[in-house]
Amino acid sequence: MSPPLDFYFEFASPYGYLASLRIDEIAARHGREVRWLPIMLGAALKRTGTGPNVQLPLKGPYLLRDVPRTARLMQVPFRPPPVMPMNSLAASRAYWWIEAGDPILAKRLAVAIFAAHWGEGRDMAAPEQVAEVAEPLGIARAGLLAAVQDPAIKEKLKAETERSIERGVFGSPFVFVDGEPFWGNDRLDQVDRWLATGGW
Amino acid sequence: MSPPLDFYFEFASPYGYLASLRIDEIAARHGREVRWLPIMLGAALKRTGTGPNVQLPLKGPYLLRDVPRTARLMQVPFRPPPVMPMNSLAASRAYWWIEAGDPILAKRLAVAIFAAHWGEGRDMAAPEQVAEVAEPLGIARAGLLAAVQDPAIKEKLKAETERSIERGVFGSPFVFVDGEPFWGNDRLDQVDRWLATGGW
Repeated sequence: MSPPLDFYFEFASPYGYLASLRIDEIAARHGREVRWLPIMLGAALKRTGTGPNVQLPLKGPYLLRDVPRTARLMQVPFRPPPVMPMNSLAASRAYWWIEAGDPILAKRLAVAIFAAHWGEGRDMAAPEQVAEVAEPLGIARAGLLAAVQDPAIKEKLKAETERSIERGVFGSPFVFVDGEPFWGNDRLDQVDRWLATGGW
Repeated sequence: MSPPLDFYFEFASPYGYLASLRIDEIAARHGREVRWLPIMLGAALKRTGTGPNVQLPLKGPYLLRDVPRTARLMQVPFRPPPVMPMNSLAASRAYWWIEAGDPILAKRLAVAIFAAHWGEGRDMAAPEQVAEVAEPLGIARAGLLAAVQDPAIKEKLKAETERSIERGVFGSPFVFVDGEPFWGNDRLDQVDRWLATGGW
């Protein structure tokens, strides 16, 4: 079987959310699976000398118009969270903690975090907030609260983030298909075609 | 008749080139015309605190892969120019000089500049290089070389650039459809649908 696609994203990125709603289905259409890799995008933004889009003059206001407009077109839930960008440390660490033992469950957790943050507009910065959406999935609150402070988990998230930058990731979402890089929710149609044709 | 779409672009922007190959046809499909407005994007990039994409770490190398890949998919000519980003002052001033008297001819000049710069990979920074592609369109060399030094033309380009920033333009291409802003070559499908539906 062909290797999975690598789907890098930042929980605080609305385009990461929008892409998360389509990427598995696109891959499945071509008999492929997807590895989800949340990272701390701030590290890459520092390298490119910029900051969170939502805070930039001109670009920020546009983003706040483009994201809901695209969500309406996709007919998916969207509600702007109270703080943008949120601090996604707890969410990302929780993901990698679960991922080590159960990648399927980790993906379900990521879906739940995205749905709460971007679909319902809930802040997900505090470990308690992440624990709240994790509990219905059978993830114990106490375990999660401990894990997000675990030095090994912190290190894992750092390492995945560093590795993403080494691979050229500078935005969210960022997808690799057999080594070929695609940046942005608006490149998913190219991802689809690349999977169908093997390149052009 | 409905007012024209406003199509802002920077001659040094490859995505501006790619969009220029589709925008008139998309608009025509809905009985609309397009006003082409070249600007100096550097001014807006300063406001957002960033610089030319091609010079940014991580983003630059990706761009040099994404642009030819998208051009191949669109089946349009693409050859990387020797200097990126080129200084587009002469090209933009020449455009606005012609535009004052003959907007149709100005658009043909823009098409020729884009084709030479991004389609054939020719530098278009020097006024002489712009004059060379302008001559076959019946634009006299001497007139063009004088115009790009004309204070009134310089002022016109500055004013259009300032006006674009006031309207929220921070990238190329940038299209307004009845006041609705769309950024990027990858938003042209949304532009198409917006024209068809009047919004969603």
